[in-house]
Amino acid sequence: MPSPHTEHLYPVILAGGVGSRLWPRSRRRTPKQFLDLAGTGRTMLQEAYDRMTPLVPPDRIYVVTGREYVPTVTAQLPALPTANIIGEPVARGSAAAIGLAAIHLQARDPDAVMAVLTADHLIAEAETLRRILVGAAELAQQGKLITLGIKPTFPETGYGYIEMGEELGCFNGMPARRVRSFREKPDRQTAEAFLRNGNYAWNSGMFIWRVDTILAALATHMPALHAALQALAPALHTAAEADAFRRHWFPLDGTVTIDYGVMERATDVAVFPADLGWNDIGSWAALLEVLPKDDHGNVVQARHFHLDSRNVLVFSRDRLIATIGLQDMVIVDTGDVILVMPVGRAQEVKQLLDALKAAGLEGYLE
Amino acid sequence: MPSPHTEHLYPVILAGGVGSRLWPRSRRRTPKQFLDLAGTGRTMLQEAYDRMTPLVPPDRIYVVTGREYVPTVTAQLPALPTANIIGEPVARGSAAAIGLAAIHLQARDPDAVMAVLTADHLIAEAETLRRILVGAAELAQQGKLITLGIKPTFPETGYGYIEMGEELGCFNGMPARRVRSFREKPDRQTAEAFLRNGNYAWNSGMFIWRVDTILAALATHMPALHAALQALAPALHTAAEADAFRRHWFPLDGTVTIDYGVMERATDVAVFPADLGWNDIGSWAALLEVLPKDDHGNVVQARHFHLDSRNVLVFSRDRLIATIGLQDMVIVDTGDVILVMPVGRAQEVKQLLDALKAAGLEGYLE
Repeated sequence: MPSPHTEHLYPVILAGGVGSRLWPRSRRRTPKQFLDLAGTGRTMLQEAYDRMTPLVPPDRIYVVTGREYVPTVTAQLPALPTANIIGEPVARGSAAAIGLAAIHLQARDPDAVMAVLTADHLIAEAETLRRILVGAAELAQQGKLITLGIKPTFPETGYGYIEMGEELGCFNGMPARRVRSFREKPDRQTAEAFLRNGNYAWNSGMFIWRVDTILAALATHMPALHAALQALAPALHTAAEADAFRRHWFPLDGTVTIDYGVMERATDVAVFPADLGWNDIGSWAALLEVLPKDDHGNVVQARHFHLDSRNVLVFSRDRLIATIGLQDMVIVDTGDVILVMPVGRAQEVKQLLDALKAAGLEGYLE
Repeated sequence: MPSPHTEHLYPVILAGGVGSRLWPRSRRRTPKQFLDLAGTGRTMLQEAYDRMTPLVPPDRIYVVTGREYVPTVTAQLPALPTANIIGEPVARGSAAAIGLAAIHLQARDPDAVMAVLTADHLIAEAETLRRILVGAAELAQQGKLITLGIKPTFPETGYGYIEMGEELGCFNGMPARRVRSFREKPDRQTAEAFLRNGNYAWNSGMFIWRVDTILAALATHMPALHAALQALAPALHTAAEADAFRRHWFPLDGTVTIDYGVMERATDVAVFPADLGWNDIGSWAALLEVLPKDDHGNVVQARHFHLDSRNVLVFSRDRLIATIGLQDMVIVDTGDVILVMPVGRAQEVKQLLDALKAAGLEGYLE
C-alpha cells in the first residue's frame, strides 16, 4: 500500500499496560500485551506489530513500554531496532508516553506523522486499520488531531464516547468527521441514547497526528509536560539521559490521559469511524465472547474433557481440565494459581487482586 | 473395653473398593480408602484400623484387599502383621472376599467371630461402633448372622434397606432386632415410606458372625463359593497357593454380593440399629456435606482465596485456588487433572470416567 502520506508515518505502539483483569495470566512480569491470549501463536504485541509491517518497514515502528519490559519487547520483536524501543523509567500516563515518543520522532524526522496504536486490543480487520491510517496520515497534514472511533455495538458504560459532527470528506477512501465533543464514561441510559443516536463512537485510544501538531497541542494544553519534554529531548541517547529523567520525568503528574489533557480541550479534532472488529479484551468475559468456540460453545485453550458444559473458557498449559454441567464459566490454570468464576463476575478480578494485596499475598500478582 | 466376647473377635476390614466417583483423587493406584479424604492426617484405612485398636490387639485385625494394594496396606499400617493382609489376586465380590477371610480365621481360631468392616466409610462415633461390636459378638454366639443397620436420615435411593422386626434384647447395652427382610434400592416414594415407617435401616455393609456360622451359610446358599473356599483352605500360605487360586478362585462368579448371596436368603438374621455418624462418602457431594466448613460454608483443603463463594469444596496440594461468586461447587486439583462441577452433578463423575475410557484417555484413571 505505497502512498506519499505513509513515507513519514511512524506507528507508535503503546505497550505499557498492566491488564490486571486478565489475572492470573496477565501478571506484573508479563502483562496482557506480552501474552498470546487468543491462542494464535503470536502475542498481542506481536499482532500489533504484524498489523503495521505491510505498511511501513520495521525501523519506522516504535514501541513505548516500561523499562523493565524492554527485554521482553526485544525478544518478541527481534526485527525491531533496539533504538525504537522507548523504555519509560516509570509510567506517567498516556499523554507523557505519547509526548516521549513525539520527541524521539521529532529528532529523527521533522515531518513525522505518528500513529498511536494499542498493543492490548484485538483488531480483526487489520487491512481496514491500515487503510484508515493512510487516510489519516493525509488528513493529518492539515494540522488536525485525529482519533479512531469504534462503531459501538452495545451500550458499554466502561468506555468514553466521541460525538461525531460534520463530514470532512474521504481520505484514502475512508470518511472522516469532525469531533463535536468527547464524553466521559456514560451511565446506562445515556449509553443507550448514544447508540440510538448513531453519531457516537467508542474512543479507541488510537490517534494520528503530525508530531509538530501534537507537541504544539501539548504546549497549549499541558505546558508542564511540554516543558519537561523539551528539557528531556537534548539528553535522549546521551550520558545525561538518566539524570534528565530523574529531574524532568519522575516529577510529572502521571494521572493525566491524552484524552483528558489534550483531546477534550483541543478544537480542531477529527475522527475516522472505524469498523475494525475491535475488542479491548478488558476481561475474561470479553475473551470468552470474542474467541472462536468449539462445537459445544466453549473456548478451549487446554485439554478439556467434559459432560454437558457450555460457554466455558478453559485455559491450562499441561493439565486436563474436566468439567461436568458447567455453563458461562471461566477456568484459568497458570500452574501456581487456578481461577474459577462465572463469566458474569469477570469484572471483579480487580477486587480479588486488591484483596490478595491486602492479605499480603502479592506474590501471586508477580 | 475387655469382654469375654471380644477374645475371639477379629475385625476384618474390606479394603478392595475403587471409589471411582471420588476421581480425580481416588485413582486406580490409590483408591479412596488409601486417601486422607477428610484431611485428618490419617487415611480412611488407617481410621478404620484406629477404630479397632482400642478393642483388640493389632494381630487380630485383618485387611482384605487387592493383591496390588498389599504394599500400600503394609506402608499405611506398619503395626499390622503381614500375615493379616489378605491379598486377592483378582476381586470376586464381597461374598468371596468375606469367605476368603473366613477360611483364614477358621485355620487360626475355630471359635473366631469376625466383624466385617468397611474402609471407605466415615464413622464419627467410633465408641458406639465398638460397643455394638462387643454386643454383636455376644449375640453371634447364638449362631446368628448379624448386620449393622444405619438409622436413615433422608430417603436415599442409592442404598439397600433392612426391614427390622421384633426386638431380641440388649447386648452390651445395645439393642438388637430380628431382620424381617432386605430391600433392594427403593424408588423415591418407597424410600420416603421407609423413612416415615421408622422400622427401616440402611444396609451398612458391616456384619458380625461366627466364622463357622458364615461358612455354614455359604455352604447352604452359595455352594460353589463354599466348595472353592474348601479347596483353597489347605493351600493357603503354602507353595500350592498360587495354583489353588488359579484353579478355584479365578473361575468364581464375582458379581454376587454377600447381601444377595447370603443375607437375603438366610432366616436367622439380626440387626443392631446403629447411630454411628456414618457416611459412605460416595461422592464429592457427600464430602462437601460432611466435612467441617469454614466461616463461609466452604470445605477448604487448599490455599483458597475468594470473593463471595459459598458451599464450595476446594482441594489442591500446592496451588492457590481463587474463586469469585461460586456456590455449591466442587474444584479438585490433583496436579495432572482439575475437576470442576456443581455439587449437584457429583454423581456423574462415573459417566465422565466412562467417557474418558472410551476416548482412550484411560491414563487419567491410573
